[in-house]
Formats: sequence, structure tokens, C-alpha cells
Amino acid sequence: MTKAKAPEQAVSSLLCELLGLFYDKGWVAGTGGGICGSLEDGTLVMAPSGVHKERVTTDDLFLVDGNAAVLRPPKNPGLRLTECSTIFSTIIARRKIGSVMHSHALSAVLAADLARGGDRIVIRDLEMLKGIRGCANSDHHAVPVVNNTAREPDLVAEILRVVDAPAFATSACVLVRHHGAYIWGRDLWETKRHAEVYHFLFEAVAARARRV
Amino acid sequence: MTKAKAPEQAVSSLLCELLGLFYDKGWVAGTGGGICGSLEDGTLVMAPSGVHKERVTTDDLFLVDGNAAVLRPPKNPGLRLTECSTIFSTIIARRKIGSVMHSHALSAVLAADLARGGDRIVIRDLEMLKGIRGCANSDHHAVPVVNNTAREPDLVAEILRVVDAPAFATSACVLVRHHGAYIWGRDLWETKRHAEVYHFLFEAVAARARRV
Amino acid sequence: MTKAKAPEQAVSSLLCELLGLFYDKGWVAGTGGGICGSLEDGTLVMAPSGVHKERVTTDDLFLVDGNAAVLRPPKNPGLRLTECSTIFSTIIARRKIGSVMHSHALSAVLAADLARGGDRIVIRDLEMLKGIRGCANSDHHAVPVVNNTAREPDLVAEILRVVDAPAFATSACVLVRHHGAYIWGRDLWETKRHAEVYHFLFEAVAARARRV
Amino acid sequence: MTKAKAPEQAVSSLLCELLGLFYDKGWVAGTGGGICGSLEDGTLVMAPSGVHKERVTTDDLFLVDGNAAVLRPPKNPGLRLTECSTIFSTIIARRKIGSVMHSHALSAVLAADLARGGDRIVIRDLEMLKGIRGCANSDHHAVPVVNNTAREPDLVAEILRVVDAPAFATSACVLVRHHGAYIWGRDLWETKRHAEVYHFLFEAVAARARRV
Repeated sequence: MTKAKAPEQAVSSLLCELLGLFYDKGWVAGTGGGICGSLEDGTLVMAPSGVHKERVTTDDLFLVDGNAAVLRPPKNPGLRLTECSTIFSTIIARRKIGSVMHSHALSAVLAADLARGGDRIVIRDLEMLKGIRGCANSDHHAVPVVNNTAREPDLVAEILRVVDAPAFATSACVLVRHHGAYIWGRDLWETKRHAEVYHFLFEAVAARARRV
Repeated sequence: MTKAKAPEQAVSSLLCELLGLFYDKGWVAGTGGGICGSLEDGTLVMAPSGVHKERVTTDDLFLVDGNAAVLRPPKNPGLRLTECSTIFSTIIARRKIGSVMHSHALSAVLAADLARGGDRIVIRDLEMLKGIRGCANSDHHAVPVVNNTAREPDLVAEILRVVDAPAFATSACVLVRHHGAYIWGRDLWETKRHAEVYHFLFEAVAARARRV
Repeated sequence: MTKAKAPEQAVSSLLCELLGLFYDKGWVAGTGGGICGSLEDGTLVMAPSGVHKERVTTDDLFLVDGNAAVLRPPKNPGLRLTECSTIFSTIIARRKIGSVMHSHALSAVLAADLARGGDRIVIRDLEMLKGIRGCANSDHHAVPVVNNTAREPDLVAEILRVVDAPAFATSACVLVRHHGAYIWGRDLWETKRHAEVYHFLFEAVAARARRV
Repeated sequence: MTKAKAPEQAVSSLLCELLGLFYDKGWVAGTGGGICGSLEDGTLVMAPSGVHKERVTTDDLFLVDGNAAVLRPPKNPGLRLTECSTIFSTIIARRKIGSVMHSHALSAVLAADLARGGDRIVIRDLEMLKGIRGCANSDHHAVPVVNNTAREPDLVAEILRVVDAPAFATSACVLVRHHGAYIWGRDLWETKRHAEVYHFLFEAVAARARRV
């Protein structure tokens, strides 16, 4: 998997467009959630924290390096970098991908609930699994579930552990219990596809669980 | 918490835009629900009663004082002030905030149903609680539930009681049984965020209750 | 209740706009459902049958008299008058109102299912009942449920019976089992409000039934 | 049933518009799903594989013959023909229709689940059945359910079998277990109507099953 290359303006515009799309789907309501894309030199583009995500413009974005240190803040000095910045940069570095989104979707919370106290959910019997890079529809696809923490930077250690775990090598997603999900891809477009696929899977397992 | 300051036109335009957004989300269908914002001098801007809320324009709005007495009616003499006016002004005065919205969402009704005859629901184990000013995701967040009345002005005494109650000091919401919710913030933007957060929480507790 | 008066172009444009809105809400999918408004002289404006309702333009509408006889067909000779025409004109005449919509919403079907073999559902404990002309939120609101027939004109006798029945005098709706609903108002605007209110009520009773 | 005739540009534009509509409804998320229309000479127009379906433009479409052999690829050499091409051409040839869509809707998966290990679901007691060409609302409408395969071309034999089976002669749909549905009509417009009707039916049987 190699990082997709794209000029800054294209990445920034698409990033903002996807935030609007994710808002319409209910994944980043209430100023929650977020997204990160990368430029060809490895610079990361991130949305600010605590703002209405569907209203973010390209002028509001941060450029940060691979360790989440700010290279160029937005003009508006009142904007703060997303609390997810270290999680984003960590997943990008460990998985050698180019983009991560953070979802606050109810379906992600309900899917994580299905793990009860456990460390994963296993998704099977769904064609949509083929929408995840490297997966087949016959897979028993294990998605890790980590416990929530008081603040997002405290999630890094647990996320690092499951992102590196061989048991979850095919997952492009980490579920955070009572919270949501981090979903990634090699670029913003693959992250969009994976986000649509995983949210479909979350809704499917939640709907099937209601019938048992 | 201090009141946000904004010129009348900006408040009025945003108020109408939010009514359209709330309609799209199903929170103000059937001419129900409403919203109120405040200007820097404490004047309140309110939508009229009994109209299709997504079609309200800035010309349709009332300016009222802190006691809900009309300062300037809209040009159209057929428009009446919302029945929620005293509830809006009371919450704004007691909580020292700047904006309140009234939701008729089904999720609010179903969440209030979970209280059965009781005076509250307690929401926990959800990251989205952090979207409420002053709350942490580890909170057991108590939201008051009051009984419905034949007409909205009759709700004022009960709402006043719970808005002042120390047990509900962190809540930016009152649920009205069989009816909906009042949700507030220091300005229209925070009210929008709180509305998105609380409706997410309502949907979450209703969905989890279906699984028990 | 008196009929609202409006010029033809305004009625026709609003009628088409409402079809688009109803489509977005899932009430007239698959070419099903419909709507009827009236002009000040009692002429009725109706959409054609068997077309994608969200794509109807003012050029596609029929003008019919109070007995559903065509006064002016649309220019396109391939268009047929809605099969609901006699139901629409009958309800308008008996209830002395000015507009009726026909919904194929799933929520209407699921609400009618709750009657099982019976002739009504009773809706209570919902503020949204106040959105129906003449109703209070303390009402036990009886909505008639009639059996479906092979073709829509065959529904007229049963609908006539319940529309005239004192037991259903406050209802602005007839549910048709396994089919949908007819919902009316004194003009298109009230029909829009009543449609939003009744669909909310259908969703509410269906959701509450899932919890029992 | 005869094939509808339309010039290429009209078919191509409508096909792309419908992909956008289907995306908004959640039927072709995550690059899944697809659609095919035919020209008056029997040439088929198909969308590419593995792309975000709501973003397909007329420049991205393939022209193929009745055996799914490519007559004219799109200008962009990176685009591949949909994996559904042989399924589309097979259904069109056997049923003598002009258009097929492929849905990845969750409701289709949940409806197919209701068959458990069986080869069909039977849909009844729903007016919306009349929206399917040749069906009455009193029908017990049998929709075939076939098992999923690792790759879509491997579905052809099973789909061919059920498309030709007298027991399913009135069905304009094949459900694929754990996967979705193929739904067809004599042209793109009828396919749109049938898609809306069948998805309504899927949602209805899934909702009714949750209540039993």
C-alpha cells in the first residue's frame, strides 16, 4: 500500500467536502469526529477541534508533520488542532497509509456494544466486506474494540497496540467503546470508501443483533 | 457562561437557517418546535407560532424583551408569537445563556418514555456527553423529565423548578414527556451543537433500550 | 372549516413542490401516492397516475370538477388521471376541505398493522396531536382503518363510511390496511402540516409498539 | 415486455443521475452496486467497477454488446468494466427487458436473511406489490434468493436458473444472500420504479419480522 499523492489544494478541498458528506450521514454531528489527509511529502492536513465540521473551509485547516507537530496553523488564531492529531499521525505511520477519519456515528457505538467487555467484533456473511482492501466476502473479519478514555490523546497506546496486532492486520478500523471509530485508507478516497463500508457493516451487525 | 454578542441580522439569518436544518432532521415537523436567539443588549429573537418552521424568513421574526414582551412584531400582522416565548425567556434568564431551541423529535419522546413515571433519565457510557458544556464522558448525566401540559405556557413552573435544581445543574436540556425537549446554549451555535449532541444521546439510549 | 382560496398557478406549483418533498420523505416512492388541491371555484387540481411523483410539473396536472370529471387534461395525452380521483373528490365534498394527499409510507402501513383486524388505531400521549385541527394533546385520537381493495376506486364506499362516522369526526386521516393513508386539510398547507403530523404519529406508535 | 428506445446521451445521463439517487438512498455505498441501461439497437450502457458510484459521469461509461463484450470503453484507461456485466446482460437477454440495477442496500440483505437457508421470500399484504409490472396487491409474491459467491461472475449460473424458473416468473428481482439484489425493468425508468418498490417491500418485511 503506497500513499496517494495529491497537491495541497485538492486534498484540502476534498477533505472539507467529505466533512460535509459525513455530517449529512450523521457521523460527525455535534462538532465531533474529524478527518486527516496527507500530501505527497508526508505533510498531514487536519481539521480543527471543536467546530461544526460541516462548516470547515480550506482556510481552517492545519498542516502538521508526521509527528503531529504544527507546520502551518490556519489564519484564524482561535482554532485549535484536533485532539485526534496524534491518533491520526500514529495510524498513518504504523499502517503506512495516507488518510484517517474519525466517526461519532451511533452505528459504530452500537456495533462496539456488541463486543460487550471483549476486545473485538467479528463481522461475517456480508458481501460488503469486499469493499475493504484485501478482504473477501468469506472472511470472518475481526475489528478491534478498545476502551474509551477521558481524553483522546490517551487512546494512542491502546490504538497503537491493536493497529500493530497480527490478529487485526486486515482491519482498516478501530472501534472505540462508547465512542465511535477510526477508519483509514491509503488516501481520502479510500478512506471515504472504507468509511461507507464499515458504517454499512456496523448497521448490519446491529440490525442482525436486534433479531436474535 | 456569558452571552455571545452578535448583530441582529446575523442572529436572524442564522436562526432561520437553523430552523431549516432542524426541519431536515425531523425535529420541527408539522409546524412544531422553535428557536430563540439573543442580541447583545439582551433582546430576544423568536420565530412565530403555527407556521411551517423551515419556511420562516427574517421578516417573520419577533423581537421581544427578557420577559417575552413584544418589542417589534413582524410586518405580517397575521403572525403570532410562539407559545414557547415565556419558556424561552425563563430558561435564558435563569441559566444566563443566550439561545434555546424546542424540539418535537420522536427520539426525544422515546427517550422521555424511558423515564416511565420518573423525573429524569440518566445517560452514561457515551463519548458524545463531552459535547455538552462542562460534561465528561464518564458522567452519569441526569436530564430532567417534566410532565406535559395542555398548553405550553403552563410548562413554565415545572421547567423553572428543574432548571434551578442542583441535581440538573449540568443539563442543557429539559425533556417534556410525550412532547419533546428544550435544549439551550450560550448562543445559537452552542444551541446547535447541544441539539445535535442531545438528539444523538436520545437515539442512543432509545436504541440501547430496544436491545435489553 | 372553509376552503382556502388561491389562484391556479400558485396551487399547481405548490402541489408539485409538495410531491417532491413527500418523495424525499419516502411517502410517494415507486410512483405511488398522490395529492390534490382545490381552486377558489371548487375546481380540483390532481397529479397524473403511474408517474414518478417527484418529477411531476405543473404541465402534467389535471383540472377536474367536484365529481372528479376531467375539465382540462394535461397537454401530454399519455397521462392518465390518478386512480385516487374519486377518493379525493369524495373526501373533499364530505369533509368540506380543500386538499387531500395519499401516502404510501411504510410508517402508515406499520401503524395500520397495529389495528390487527380492527377498524381503528387510537393514538394518545403525544403532543403532536395538537397539530391536527381541533385536537388536544390529551385526546385519545381514533384514526379509522379500512381494508384494502384490488383497485383504488373500490375503496370509496368504505372511506365514505368512516369519513362520515361521528366516531372519527376529529380525524383528518383514513388508514388503508397494507396500503397507506389519505390525509387532508383545508388547503395544501394544512394538508402538508397534517401529513407531517400523522406520519410522526405513525412512527411514534410503531416505535412504541416495538418496545412493549 | 418490449425494450424502451432512447438515444445514447439520454440513457447515459439518466443512468448517472440514477446512480446519484441510489447513492443518496444508501443502495450503492462504498463503491458497491451498479446499473445498466440499453440503447435501441440493444447496446448496453454500464458503469465502471470500483468507483464511487455517485460520482460517475457520462464519460466514464462503457458501451457493451448483448454478451457483455466491450464495444467502446471510456476515455480513462484506468476504468474497468463492472463485475456485474455478465449478470446484467444475462438478465436482459432472458427476461427481454432493457435495464438492471444492482443494489447493496442493507434492507435487501435483511430481507434475504428472512429466507434463512431457503430459496425465496414471499411478500404479501402490501399495496406496493402493484408497483411491480404484472402484480396485484393480493399476490403472494415470491422473490428468489440465491447464495452468494466469491466473485460476481460466479453468480451467473444461479441467477440464470431462477430468472428462468416459472415459480419466479412475476419477480423483477433476485436477492443474493448476504449481498443485495438485482432489480430490473423494461427501461431505466421502470428499473427506478421497481427499485423503489422492492426496497420498500424489503423494509416492510424486515420491519414486520422484528415485531413477530
